[in-house]
Amino acid sequence: MCEANVYIFKNGAEELLLESVDKIVPNEDTVLLENIFGQQKIVKARIKEMALVSHRIILEKIE
Amino acid sequence: MCEANVYIFKNGAEELLLESVDKIVPNEDTVLLENIFGQQKIVKARIKEMALVSHRIILEKIE
Repeated sequence: MCEANVYIFKNGAEELLLESVDKIVPNEDTVLLENIFGQQKIVKARIKEMALVSHRIILEKIE
Repeated sequence: MCEANVYIFKNGAEELLLESVDKIVPNEDTVLLENIFGQQKIVKARIKEMALVSHRIILEKIE
């Protein structure tokens, strides 16, 4: 399976936000995440970078 | 390997832009893509949606 772990970057550190994420839908100033277990999160953030081979997606908090 | 194929949505249709993409870095109004072969593309677009389990990333052209 090729889901990724989503981290949020805030105060200079990365914090795990949601594991095994399949779907990501960015909006104006939020990002909708849905993992393979159907768990959803909407976070006030934007995508900073993604590295799919290492299963990592980093979001950046919007203050 | 968990890279994805990146498609661009324009004029109502999806067009394959780059295969086997590992890294994605969105900026103001561009998206930088890099695939596992080191090939890079910068496109004037934003991320519309991603479905990692099906290896699909859809960008939306910024006119």
